Amino acid sequence: MNYQQLTQLICHKKSLLCVGLDTDLQLLPPHLLQTTDPVFEFNKAIIDATIDLAVAYKPNLAFYESMGLSGLRSLERTMEYLQNFKSEVFTIADAKRGDIGNTSKMYAKTFFEWLKFDSVTVAPYMGEDSVTPFLEYKDKWVILLGLTSNKGSSDFQFLNTGSRKLYEEVITKAQQWGSKNQLMFVAGATHPEEFKNLRALAPDYFYLVPGVGAQGGDLNKICENGLNANGGLLINSARQIIYASKGKNFAEEARKQALLMHESLQRFMPSISAA
Amino acid sequence: MNYQQLTQLICHKKSLLCVGLDTDLQLLPPHLLQTTDPVFEFNKAIIDATIDLAVAYKPNLAFYESMGLSGLRSLERTMEYLQNFKSEVFTIADAKRGDIGNTSKMYAKTFFEWLKFDSVTVAPYMGEDSVTPFLEYKDKWVILLGLTSNKGSSDFQFLNTGSRKLYEEVITKAQQWGSKNQLMFVAGATHPEEFKNLRALAPDYFYLVPGVGAQGGDLNKICENGLNANGGLLINSARQIIYASKGKNFAEEARKQALLMHESLQRFMPSISAA
Repeated sequence: MNYQQLTQLICHKKSLLCVGLDTDLQLLPPHLLQTTDPVFEFNKAIIDATIDLAVAYKPNLAFYESMGLSGLRSLERTMEYLQNFKSEVFTIADAKRGDIGNTSKMYAKTFFEWLKFDSVTVAPYMGEDSVTPFLEYKDKWVILLGLTSNKGSSDFQFLNTGSRKLYEEVITKAQQWGSKNQLMFVAGATHPEEFKNLRALAPDYFYLVPGVGAQGGDLNKICENGLNANGGLLINSARQIIYASKGKNFAEEARKQALLMHESLQRFMPSISAA
Repeated sequence: MNYQQLTQLICHKKSLLCVGLDTDLQLLPPHLLQTTDPVFEFNKAIIDATIDLAVAYKPNLAFYESMGLSGLRSLERTMEYLQNFKSEVFTIADAKRGDIGNTSKMYAKTFFEWLKFDSVTVAPYMGEDSVTPFLEYKDKWVILLGLTSNKGSSDFQFLNTGSRKLYEEVITKAQQWGSKNQLMFVAGATHPEEFKNLRALAPDYFYLVPGVGAQGGDLNKICENGLNANGGLLINSARQIIYASKGKNFAEEARKQALLMHESLQRFMPSISAA
């Protein structure tokens, strides 16, 4: 999916919502555990219940890997299912990979060829050659960690590196490696006060924003400070939506939570237009 | 495996050698492609041919993931096979993971429970809570990226952050999170001039050193500057050993390369003793 298509999707669905598929076998509705692939059945039901409200889905790789081969098979099936909605939704492998060039190339193959994701999250510590192999795929994206949502973000990301903080340096330098058409940044919703600065750092780029909901980020402030003319934000919510209920009605309850998020975004949508 | 056992292994085998299992289907000896699991057969033969010379094996996750479920099954079988040598070898998942706390916990489960690795490489950008969930496992290890071997290491790792470079800050701060009994650092062999400094920064900790061989690192200089009383270095070599030949004798040729590396380490071994 390219930049223009993504922004058209946002305008069409009037949404910036990304649903995080952090699917944990321990937290699934018990009745699903009788099925042959509870993780896939859960994901499929969540996708079906939210597809008109969400512009993106973000499976978190750790959750699938921790279940071994069967978890990865469930992820593979989830991605096969999402291929049915190819032009309707942007997919994000939340994998936080990054390695030396020839290894990053292998990761790109994993996420773009095997699993057919549109994008993958990448850690910046190893620099340019850990990022660029992903950008060799047309219409595929890197979402580079900028300012993360967790407590540990304060350990290194705010260090002063001369005239800039480290996260500012990452976001500034990486724009030399990829354009807004293939590169986004992660910016955690737990730092709402930073979004004016984040937008100024990369006016035309998208930010993927985790940490709204369970992690406590302030949606309004983030939109007020972080939106640009094409949207420029993908707001992720996982636990709050997908684990809204453990009952047989879990998908309906997930939809209700997604609707709440969708509604709270509506005041911002009129100012957004497609590229 | 704990610190004492690792140092005993080093003294017993008179070796610091780590064999990198960067197993690439494209580079395998053609005769193996007839077998049902060429990747596993290759790894098994390499392990059998080098087990008395290597103290560690380091499968690179990207290579297995890029082959999809079958690649991960080959990795699973490789790790099952390595369980036969449990007390004879230290295993490293070169995965460069790292995420918010509850996600890193899932990655820890993946590598320590499913695949039964002794250790996993972790990226430092997200800070303390991305690292500590791995340390909750007794006798399991984090190998944190310090100074990497690739060209992109110059993008951020050498930035001045007040009184220290970023990689120095990472190595210094992380010692508050884990002791030498559960934490190591990655330091690329392509920076031999930094090893005096690296050793001073973390006198008692192990460094995993990739980049000798194909990437051109200087083994002697690294040992002269980087060794400590218990060894303190694991020297990785991958391509130079495992792809020594594409013939039916590939395992013998791999052994010859491993022997060369083992021999070049012997002048340093008398100064090393177990903890």
